[in-house]
Amino acid sequence: MINTRFSSSLLEKAVMEINRLPGIGSKTALRLALHLLRQEEGRVEALAESLVKMRRGVHYCKVCHNICDDERCEICSNPNRESSLVCVVENVQDVMAIENTMQYRGLYHVLGGVISPMDGIGPSDLQIESLVERVRQGGVEEVILALSPTMEGDTTNFYIFRKLEETSVKVTVIARGIAQNDELQYTDEVTLGRALAGRVPFGK
Amino acid sequence: MINTRFSSSLLEKAVMEINRLPGIGSKTALRLALHLLRQEEGRVEALAESLVKMRRGVHYCKVCHNICDDERCEICSNPNRESSLVCVVENVQDVMAIENTMQYRGLYHVLGGVISPMDGIGPSDLQIESLVERVRQGGVEEVILALSPTMEGDTTNFYIFRKLEETSVKVTVIARGIAQNDELQYTDEVTLGRALAGRVPFGK
Repeated sequence: MINTRFSSSLLEKAVMEINRLPGIGSKTALRLALHLLRQEEGRVEALAESLVKMRRGVHYCKVCHNICDDERCEICSNPNRESSLVCVVENVQDVMAIENTMQYRGLYHVLGGVISPMDGIGPSDLQIESLVERVRQGGVEEVILALSPTMEGDTTNFYIFRKLEETSVKVTVIARGIAQNDELQYTDEVTLGRALAGRVPFGK
Repeated sequence: MINTRFSSSLLEKAVMEINRLPGIGSKTALRLALHLLRQEEGRVEALAESLVKMRRGVHYCKVCHNICDDERCEICSNPNRESSLVCVVENVQDVMAIENTMQYRGLYHVLGGVISPMDGIGPSDLQIESLVERVRQGGVEEVILALSPTMEGDTTNFYIFRKLEETSVKVTVIARGIAQNDELQYTDEVTLGRALAGRVPFGK
Protein backbone atom coordinates (compact mmCIF):
# COMPACT_ATOMS: atom_id res chain seq x y z
CA MET A 1 0.00 0.00 0.00
CA ILE A 2 2.99 2.29 0.45
CA ASN A 3 3.13 3.19 -3.21
CA THR A 4 -0.62 3.45 -3.60
CA ARG A 5 -1.65 5.99 -6.23
CA PHE A 6 -4.39 8.14 -4.79
CA SER A 7 -6.81 9.61 -7.27
CA SER A 8 -7.45 12.50 -4.88
CA SER A 9 -4.74 14.54 -3.16
CA LEU A 10 -7.21 15.52 -0.43
CA LEU A 11 -7.87 11.87 0.31
CA GLU A 12 -4.15 11.15 0.24
CA LYS A 13 -3.43 13.95 2.72
CA ALA A 14 -6.15 12.74 5.10
CA VAL A 15 -4.95 9.14 4.89
CA MET A 16 -1.39 10.31 5.59
CA GLU A 17 -2.51 12.22 8.68
CA ILE A 18 -4.63 9.32 10.02
CA ASN A 19 -1.71 6.96 9.32
CA ARG A 20 0.44 8.98 11.74
CA LEU A 21 -1.68 7.79 14.66
CA PRO A 22 -0.10 4.96 16.65
CA GLY A 23 -1.33 1.51 15.72
CA ILE A 24 -3.17 2.73 12.60
CA GLY A 25 -1.63 1.25 9.45
CA SER A 26 -2.08 2.59 5.93
CA LYS A 27 -4.92 0.19 5.09
CA THR A 28 -6.86 1.10 8.23
CA ALA A 29 -6.17 4.79 7.57
CA LEU A 30 -7.65 4.46 4.07
CA ARG A 31 -10.64 2.57 5.43
CA LEU A 32 -11.29 5.25 8.05
CA ALA A 33 -10.88 8.08 5.51
CA LEU A 34 -13.34 6.45 3.10
CA HIS A 35 -15.75 5.91 5.99
CA LEU A 36 -15.56 9.61 6.84
CA LEU A 37 -16.18 10.48 3.18
CA ARG A 38 -19.49 8.65 3.40
CA GLN A 39 -20.55 10.54 6.55
CA GLU A 40 -22.45 13.82 6.77
CA GLU A 41 -20.16 16.85 6.61
CA GLY A 42 -21.36 17.85 10.09
CA ARG A 43 -20.19 14.56 11.57
CA VAL A 44 -16.68 14.97 10.21
CA GLU A 45 -16.59 18.54 11.47
CA ALA A 46 -17.74 17.39 14.92
CA LEU A 47 -14.90 14.87 15.05
CA ALA A 48 -12.30 17.39 13.89
CA GLU A 49 -13.56 20.06 16.29
CA SER A 50 -13.57 17.71 19.28
CA LEU A 51 -9.90 16.85 18.67
CA VAL A 52 -8.74 20.46 18.37
CA LYS A 53 -10.88 21.62 21.30
CA MET A 54 -9.52 18.82 23.46
CA ARG A 55 -5.90 19.58 22.58
CA ARG A 56 -6.38 23.32 23.19
CA GLY A 57 -8.64 23.16 26.23
CA VAL A 58 -7.44 20.30 28.39
CA HIS A 59 -5.61 21.23 31.60
CA TYR A 60 -3.53 19.18 33.97
CA CYS A 61 -4.59 19.41 37.61
CA LYS A 62 -2.15 21.57 39.59
CA VAL A 63 -2.31 19.19 42.53
CA CYS A 64 -2.38 15.66 41.12
CA HIS A 65 -1.51 16.23 37.41
CA ASN A 66 -4.58 14.33 36.25
CA ILE A 67 -6.26 15.53 33.05
CA CYS A 68 -9.10 17.97 33.69
CA ASP A 69 -10.99 20.95 32.29
CA ASP A 70 -9.99 23.44 34.99
CA GLU A 71 -7.01 24.26 37.19
CA ARG A 72 -7.91 21.54 39.66
CA CYS A 73 -9.53 18.23 38.80
CA GLU A 74 -12.90 17.07 40.06
CA ILE A 75 -11.33 14.51 42.38
CA CYS A 76 -9.00 17.01 44.09
CA SER A 77 -11.86 19.53 44.36
CA ASN A 78 -14.28 17.03 45.85
CA PRO A 79 -14.60 17.65 49.64
CA ASN A 80 -16.01 14.15 50.13
CA ARG A 81 -12.76 12.45 49.11
CA GLU A 82 -10.23 11.51 51.77
CA SER A 83 -7.45 14.02 51.25
CA SER A 84 -5.11 12.20 53.64
CA LEU A 85 -4.82 9.31 51.18
CA VAL A 86 -2.78 9.73 47.97
CA CYS A 87 -2.55 6.98 45.37
CA VAL A 88 0.49 7.23 43.08
CA VAL A 89 -0.20 6.03 39.52
CA GLU A 90 1.66 6.09 36.24
CA ASN A 91 -0.90 7.73 34.00
CA VAL A 92 -4.43 8.97 33.42
CA GLN A 93 -5.73 5.57 32.31
CA ASP A 94 -4.68 4.15 35.69
CA VAL A 95 -6.77 6.79 37.48
CA MET A 96 -9.74 5.74 35.34
CA ALA A 97 -9.10 2.06 36.07
CA ILE A 98 -9.02 2.64 39.84
CA GLU A 99 -12.04 4.97 39.73
CA ASN A 100 -13.93 2.23 37.87
CA THR A 101 -13.43 -0.13 40.83
CA MET A 102 -15.45 2.34 42.95
CA GLN A 103 -13.39 1.09 45.90
CA TYR A 104 -11.14 4.10 46.39
CA ARG A 105 -12.15 7.38 48.01
CA GLY A 106 -8.76 9.07 48.33
CA LEU A 107 -6.85 11.36 45.96
CA TYR A 108 -4.29 10.62 43.24
CA HIS A 109 -0.86 11.67 42.07
CA VAL A 110 -0.18 11.04 38.38
CA LEU A 111 3.56 10.59 37.73
CA GLY A 112 3.32 10.79 33.96
CA GLY A 113 5.39 7.63 33.49
CA VAL A 114 7.86 5.43 35.32
CA ILE A 115 11.64 5.57 35.63
CA SER A 116 13.02 3.85 32.55
CA PRO A 117 16.69 4.47 31.72
CA MET A 118 16.23 2.47 28.48
CA ASP A 119 13.71 5.05 27.28
CA GLY A 120 15.71 7.94 28.71
CA ILE A 121 13.13 8.66 31.42
CA GLY A 122 14.67 9.70 34.73
CA PRO A 123 13.08 10.84 38.01
CA SER A 124 13.22 14.49 36.95
CA ASP A 125 10.97 13.75 33.96
CA LEU A 126 8.24 12.58 36.33
CA GLN A 127 6.06 14.29 38.93
CA ILE A 128 8.07 12.85 41.84
CA GLU A 129 9.43 16.10 43.25
CA SER A 130 5.90 17.54 43.34
CA LEU A 131 4.73 14.42 45.21
CA VAL A 132 7.43 14.86 47.87
CA GLU A 133 6.53 18.55 48.14
CA ARG A 134 2.84 17.65 48.45
CA VAL A 135 3.60 15.28 51.33
CA ARG A 136 5.91 17.83 52.97
CA GLN A 137 3.13 20.40 53.03
CA GLY A 138 1.24 18.09 55.40
CA GLY A 139 -2.20 16.57 55.44
CA VAL A 140 -1.16 13.38 53.68
CA GLU A 141 -1.09 10.37 55.99
CA GLU A 142 -0.63 7.52 53.53
CA VAL A 143 0.91 7.25 50.07
CA ILE A 144 -0.26 4.17 48.15
CA LEU A 145 2.13 3.07 45.42
CA ALA A 146 -0.02 1.67 42.56
CA LEU A 147 2.44 1.30 39.70
CA SER A 148 2.51 -1.70 37.39
CA PRO A 149 4.56 -4.61 38.84
CA THR A 150 7.29 -4.34 36.21
CA MET A 151 11.00 -3.71 36.68
CA GLU A 152 10.45 -0.04 35.86
CA GLY A 153 7.48 0.17 38.22
CA ASP A 154 9.45 -1.49 41.04
CA THR A 155 12.41 0.85 40.48
CA THR A 156 10.11 3.85 40.60
CA ASN A 157 8.38 2.53 43.73
CA PHE A 158 11.74 2.17 45.46
CA TYR A 159 12.92 5.61 44.36
CA ILE A 160 9.74 7.24 45.69
CA PHE A 161 9.98 5.24 48.92
CA ARG A 162 13.52 6.52 49.51
CA LYS A 163 12.52 10.07 48.69
CA LEU A 164 9.62 9.93 51.15
CA GLU A 165 11.70 8.36 53.97
CA GLU A 166 12.61 11.80 55.32
CA THR A 167 8.91 12.56 55.86
CA SER A 168 6.96 10.47 58.36
CA VAL A 169 4.31 9.48 55.84
CA LYS A 170 3.14 5.86 55.69
CA VAL A 171 4.02 4.29 52.36
CA THR A 172 2.09 1.22 51.16
CA VAL A 173 2.04 -0.73 47.93
CA ILE A 174 -0.98 -2.42 46.30
CA ALA A 175 -1.23 -6.17 46.87
CA ARG A 176 0.37 -8.55 44.41
CA GLY A 177 -1.09 -12.00 43.98
CA ILE A 178 -3.13 -14.15 41.72
CA ALA A 179 -5.69 -12.29 39.65
CA GLN A 180 -9.38 -13.11 39.95
CA ASN A 181 -10.31 -16.10 37.73
CA ASP A 182 -6.67 -16.92 36.94
CA GLU A 183 -5.75 -20.60 37.17
CA LEU A 184 -3.18 -21.45 39.83
CA GLN A 185 -1.28 -23.92 37.66
CA TYR A 186 -0.65 -21.34 34.96
CA THR A 187 0.46 -18.58 37.32
CA ASP A 188 4.14 -17.63 37.00
CA GLU A 189 6.55 -18.45 39.85
CA VAL A 190 7.17 -14.85 40.95
CA THR A 191 3.47 -14.07 41.27
CA LEU A 192 2.73 -17.36 43.03
CA GLY A 193 5.68 -16.88 45.40
CA ARG A 194 4.54 -13.37 46.23
CA ALA A 195 0.95 -14.54 46.72
CA LEU A 196 2.17 -17.15 49.22
CA ALA A 197 4.44 -14.74 51.07
CA GLY A 198 1.72 -12.13 51.21
CA ARG A 199 -1.00 -14.47 52.50
CA VAL A 200 -3.63 -12.95 54.78
CA PRO A 201 -5.91 -14.45 57.46
CA PHE A 202 -8.89 -16.15 55.82
CA GLY A 203 -12.19 -14.35 56.06
CA LYS A 204 -10.57 -10.99 56.76
CA MET B 1 -14.81 0.98 29.87
CA ILE B 2 -18.39 1.89 29.00
CA ASN B 3 -18.98 3.54 32.36
CA THR B 4 -15.55 5.12 32.55
CA ARG B 5 -15.56 8.38 34.47
CA PHE B 6 -13.61 10.95 32.51
CA SER B 7 -11.93 13.66 34.50
CA SER B 8 -12.19 15.99 31.49
CA SER B 9 -15.33 16.55 29.44
CA LEU B 10 -13.21 17.66 26.47
CA LEU B 11 -11.32 14.38 26.57
CA GLU B 12 -14.59 12.49 26.94
CA LYS B 13 -16.11 14.23 23.91
CA ALA B 14 -13.04 13.50 21.78
CA VAL B 15 -12.97 9.84 22.85
CA MET B 16 -16.68 9.57 22.04
CA GLU B 17 -16.14 10.99 18.56
CA ILE B 18 -13.13 8.75 17.82
CA ASN B 19 -15.10 5.79 19.17
CA ARG B 20 -17.72 6.36 16.43
CA LEU B 21 -15.19 5.32 13.78
CA PRO B 22 -15.67 1.75 12.55
CA GLY B 23 -13.38 -0.79 14.19
CA ILE B 24 -12.19 1.64 16.87
CA GLY B 25 -13.27 0.51 20.32
CA SER B 26 -13.43 2.66 23.43
CA LYS B 27 -9.98 1.61 24.69
CA THR B 28 -8.33 2.40 21.35
CA ALA B 29 -10.24 5.69 21.19
CA LEU B 30 -8.89 6.67 24.61
CA ARG B 31 -5.37 5.64 23.61
CA LEU B 32 -5.56 7.74 20.43
CA ALA B 33 -7.01 10.75 22.25
CA LEU B 34 -4.25 10.64 24.89
CA HIS B 35 -1.68 10.30 22.10
CA LEU B 36 -3.06 13.44 20.43
CA LEU B 37 -2.93 15.26 23.78
CA ARG B 38 0.82 14.66 23.85
CA GLN B 39 1.32 16.03 20.32
CA GLU B 40 2.01 19.62 19.30
CA GLU B 41 -1.17 21.63 18.85
CA GLY B 42 -0.26 22.14 15.19
CA ARG B 43 -0.19 18.43 14.52
CA VAL B 44 -3.69 17.92 15.90
CA GLU B 45 -4.92 20.88 13.87
CA ALA B 46 -3.32 19.43 10.72
CA LEU B 47 -5.13 16.13 11.28
CA ALA B 48 -8.48 17.84 11.94
CA GLU B 49 -8.09 20.15 8.95
CA SER B 50 -7.17 17.33 6.57
CA LEU B 51 -10.35 15.44 7.51
CA VAL B 52 -12.67 18.41 7.05
CA LYS B 53 -10.94 19.53 3.83
CA MET B 54 -11.19 16.03 2.43
CA ARG B 55 -14.88 15.71 3.28
CA ARG B 56 -15.66 19.14 1.80
CA GLY B 57 -13.39 19.05 -1.22
CA VAL B 58 -13.46 15.55 -2.61
CA HIS B 59 -15.40 15.04 -5.86
CA TYR B 60 -16.61 11.93 -7.60
CA CYS B 61 -15.57 11.66 -11.26
CA LYS B 62 -18.53 12.39 -13.55
CA VAL B 63 -17.48 9.61 -15.90
CA CYS B 64 -16.29 6.72 -13.75
CA HIS B 65 -17.41 7.80 -10.23
CA ASN B 66 -13.92 7.34 -8.82
CA ILE B 67 -12.83 9.72 -6.04
CA CYS B 68 -10.95 12.77 -7.34
CA ASP B 69 -10.21 16.43 -6.73
CA ASP B 70 -11.91 17.78 -9.87
CA GLU B 71 -14.93 17.03 -12.03
CA ARG B 72 -13.10 14.27 -13.88
CA CYS B 73 -10.50 11.97 -12.39
CA GLU B 74 -6.88 11.76 -13.52
CA ILE B 75 -7.43 8.37 -15.13
CA CYS B 76 -10.40 9.49 -17.24
CA SER B 77 -8.58 12.71 -18.20
CA ASN B 78 -5.39 10.88 -19.21
CA PRO B 79 -5.18 10.72 -23.04
CA ASN B 80 -2.66 7.88 -22.81
CA ARG B 81 -5.17 5.46 -21.28
CA GLU B 82 -7.16 3.15 -23.56
CA SER B 83 -10.64 4.63 -23.46
CA SER B 84 -12.15 1.65 -25.30
CA LEU B 85 -11.52 -0.54 -22.24
CA VAL B 86 -13.69 -0.11 -19.12
CA CYS B 87 -13.07 -2.13 -15.97
CA VAL B 88 -16.08 -2.39 -13.64
CA VAL B 89 -15.15 -2.45 -9.94
CA GLU B 90 -17.03 -2.29 -6.66
CA ASN B 91 -15.25 0.58 -4.96
CA VAL B 92 -12.36 3.02 -4.83
CA GLN B 93 -10.02 0.60 -3.05
CA ASP B 94 -10.42 -1.81 -5.97
CA VAL B 95 -9.29 0.90 -8.41
CA MET B 96 -6.20 1.41 -6.23
CA ALA B 97 -5.54 -2.33 -6.08
CA ILE B 98 -5.69 -2.67 -9.87
CA GLU B 99 -3.63 0.49 -10.43
CA ASN B 100 -1.00 -0.95 -8.10
CA THR B 101 -0.58 -3.95 -10.41
CA MET B 102 0.56 -1.49 -13.13
CA GLN B 103 -0.88 -3.99 -15.63
CA TYR B 104 -3.97 -2.12 -16.69
CA ARG B 105 -4.07 0.86 -19.05
CA GLY B 106 -7.82 1.21 -19.59
CA LEU B 107 -10.48 3.19 -17.71
CA TYR B 108 -12.73 2.26 -14.78
CA HIS B 109 -16.33 2.35 -13.71
CA VAL B 110 -16.89 2.37 -9.95
CA LEU B 111 -20.27 0.85 -9.05
CA GLY B 112 -20.25 1.97 -5.42
CA GLY B 113 -21.15 -1.52 -4.17
CA VAL B 114 -22.67 -4.76 -5.38
CA ILE B 115 -26.27 -5.97 -5.54
CA SER B 116 -27.10 -7.32 -2.09
CA PRO B 117 -30.77 -7.81 -1.24
CA MET B 118 -29.80 -8.74 2.32
CA ASP B 119 -28.33 -5.27 2.82
CA GLY B 120 -31.12 -3.61 0.86
CA ILE B 121 -28.84 -2.69 -2.04
CA GLY B 122 -30.54 -3.01 -5.41
CA PRO B 123 -29.33 -2.19 -8.94
CA SER B 124 -30.73 1.36 -8.74
CA ASP B 125 -28.45 2.11 -5.75
CA LEU B 126 -25.40 1.43 -7.91
CA GLN B 127 -23.83 3.13 -10.93
CA ILE B 128 -25.14 0.48 -13.35
CA GLU B 129 -27.48 2.68 -15.39
CA SER B 130 -24.63 5.16 -15.95
CA LEU B 131 -22.42 2.29 -17.15
CA VAL B 132 -25.01 1.19 -19.70
CA GLU B 133 -25.41 4.81 -20.82
CA ARG B 134 -21.62 5.15 -21.10
CA VAL B 135 -21.44 2.06 -23.33
CA ARG B 136 -24.43 3.25 -25.41
CA GLN B 137 -22.68 6.53 -26.16
CA GLY B 138 -20.05 4.49 -28.04
CA GLY B 139 -16.28 4.28 -27.88
CA VAL B 140 -16.24 1.40 -25.40
CA GLU B 141 -15.23 -1.90 -26.99
CA GLU B 142 -14.77 -4.10 -23.93
CA VAL B 143 -16.25 -4.10 -20.42
CA ILE B 144 -14.17 -6.08 -17.94
CA LEU B 145 -16.14 -7.27 -14.90
CA ALA B 146 -13.77 -7.19 -11.92
CA LEU B 147 -16.04 -7.70 -8.93
CA SER B 148 -15.16 -9.96 -6.00
CA PRO B 149 -16.06 -13.61 -6.66
CA THR B 150 -18.82 -13.71 -4.05
CA MET B 151 -22.49 -14.49 -4.49
CA GLU B 152 -23.25 -10.75 -4.54
CA GLY B 153 -20.44 -10.11 -7.03
CA ASP B 154 -21.64 -12.91 -9.30
CA THR B 155 -25.22 -11.65 -9.14
CA THR B 156 -24.09 -8.16 -10.06
CA ASN B 157 -21.90 -9.49 -12.88
CA PHE B 158 -24.88 -11.33 -14.31
CA TYR B 159 -27.19 -8.33 -13.96
CA ILE B 160 -24.71 -6.08 -15.77
CA PHE B 161 -24.15 -8.71 -18.46
CA ARG B 162 -27.89 -8.87 -19.16
CA LYS B 163 -28.16 -5.08 -19.20
CA LEU B 164 -25.31 -4.81 -21.70
CA GLU B 165 -26.63 -7.56 -23.98
CA GLU B 166 -28.61 -5.04 -26.02
CA THR B 167 -25.37 -3.22 -26.89
CA SER B 168 -22.75 -5.03 -28.94
CA VAL B 169 -19.99 -4.46 -26.37
CA LYS B 170 -17.68 -7.36 -25.51
CA VAL B 171 -18.09 -8.36 -21.83
CA THR B 172 -15.28 -10.24 -20.09
CA VAL B 173 -14.68 -11.27 -16.48
CA ILE B 174 -11.34 -11.45 -14.68
CA ALA B 175 -9.81 -14.91 -14.38
CA ARG B 176 -10.58 -17.08 -11.38
CA GLY B 177 -8.10 -19.65 -10.27
CA ILE B 178 -5.51 -20.45 -7.65
CA ALA B 179 -3.82 -17.40 -6.16
CA GLN B 180 -0.05 -16.99 -6.42
CA ASN B 181 1.75 -18.92 -3.64
CA ASP B 182 -1.41 -20.72 -2.54
CA GLU B 183 -1.05 -24.42 -1.92
CA LEU B 184 -3.11 -26.66 -4.18
CA GLN B 185 -4.12 -29.08 -1.42
CA TYR B 186 -5.68 -26.31 0.65
CA THR B 187 -7.57 -24.69 -2.23
CA ASP B 188 -11.37 -25.00 -1.97
CA GLU B 189 -13.28 -27.19 -4.46
CA VAL B 190 -15.03 -24.36 -6.30
CA THR B 191 -11.79 -22.48 -6.96
CA LEU B 192 -9.93 -25.63 -7.97
CA GLY B 193 -12.80 -26.70 -10.22
CA ARG B 194 -12.87 -23.30 -11.90
CA ALA B 195 -9.09 -23.30 -12.26
CA LEU B 196 -9.26 -26.64 -14.05
CA ALA B 197 -12.18 -25.64 -16.26
CA GLY B 198 -10.46 -22.34 -17.11
CA ARG B 199 -7.08 -23.87 -17.97
CA VAL B 200 -5.04 -22.08 -20.67
CA PRO B 201 -2.30 -23.32 -23.03
CA PHE B 202 1.02 -23.48 -21.17
CA GLY B 203 3.52 -20.74 -21.97
CA LYS B 204 0.89 -18.41 -23.32
